[in-house]
Amino acid sequence: MATEPKALEDLFHDTLKDVYYAEKQILKTLPKMAKVAKSPELKQAFELHRTETEGQIERLTDIFEILGKAPRGKTCDAILGIIEEGKEIMEEYADSPALDAGLTAAAQAVEHYEISRYGTLKAWADQLGLKDASKLLAETLAEEEKTDKTLSSLGKAVNAAATKKAA
Amino acid sequence: MATEPKALEDLFHDTLKDVYYAEKQILKTLPKMAKVAKSPELKQAFELHRTETEGQIERLTDIFEILGKAPRGKTCDAILGIIEEGKEIMEEYADSPALDAGLTAAAQAVEHYEISRYGTLKAWADQLGLKDASKLLAETLAEEEKTDKTLSSLGKAVNAAATKKAA
Repeated sequence: MATEPKALEDLFHDTLKDVYYAEKQILKTLPKMAKVAKSPELKQAFELHRTETEGQIERLTDIFEILGKAPRGKTCDAILGIIEEGKEIMEEYADSPALDAGLTAAAQAVEHYEISRYGTLKAWADQLGLKDASKLLAETLAEEEKTDKTLSSLGKAVNAAATKKAA
Repeated sequence: MATEPKALEDLFHDTLKDVYYAEKQILKTLPKMAKVAKSPELKQAFELHRTETEGQIERLTDIFEILGKAPRGKTCDAILGIIEEGKEIMEEYADSPALDAGLTAAAQAVEHYEISRYGTLKAWADQLGLKDASKLLAETLAEEEKTDKTLSSLGKAVNAAATKKAA
């Protein structure tokens, strides 16, 4: 029956739990970032990504189901560290014109963590012959990459504002 | 005198300290990863990136000098969390055929953190008119992106080995 040995499947499952935990943390953090962001466009980008994150969590739930496992998270030290740095920015730059620039950078660090994890999970799903899971992971990966690009282009306006040279 | 307001410069300097600390942690971690990796190609990739990391730290030192600041790190919770996850892989998958797949994933999480930070720093250097710093950051960014691509392509062989289907 077992055409696929267990090792990579275990790693896939462990990493799925890691990302599931990470997404739930991100879901809690995005509204805080949207609340403090000064640029309306940045605020909107965080709110949009919050909605996307809900869909991404649903996709993960679907993948747990494909594996025949209960959706369960596993503490992800990486995302906790990345979010902690975002919190420091929110505190240390609360009254600074560079707040939005710092928030954008923090959000891009989150996006890149996710891009790395979803890229890895997709490659493993392909290797394991999990076609439906691979498709779901590709959808989320594309969203994360798009969000990162949006943040990069918002960053330009936000960075200009941070130097007070902008209007 | 001060043609650039202080806010974004501060953020640039803080983030430079963050990455400087992160690179030093990475420098300590790469030899451990090279030591346990089973694939000779992966081992070699980690060793090569260790050498590159030394050069990247030198570039950061040069940028501190451009700013007229002493090169100093600042605890980076993000990289500590990312590295912690890599350590867990090394322990939990020590005797698994999926060890190399897990190491590759951990290294790509590190790369993506760096890509995000160097991308941000470069954008800020451009905004601040720090041309020489921008050039140095672009060089490192290109190296990190290349390393990530190398790891993605090594990943294919490594993932196949993890399912024991490979020779």
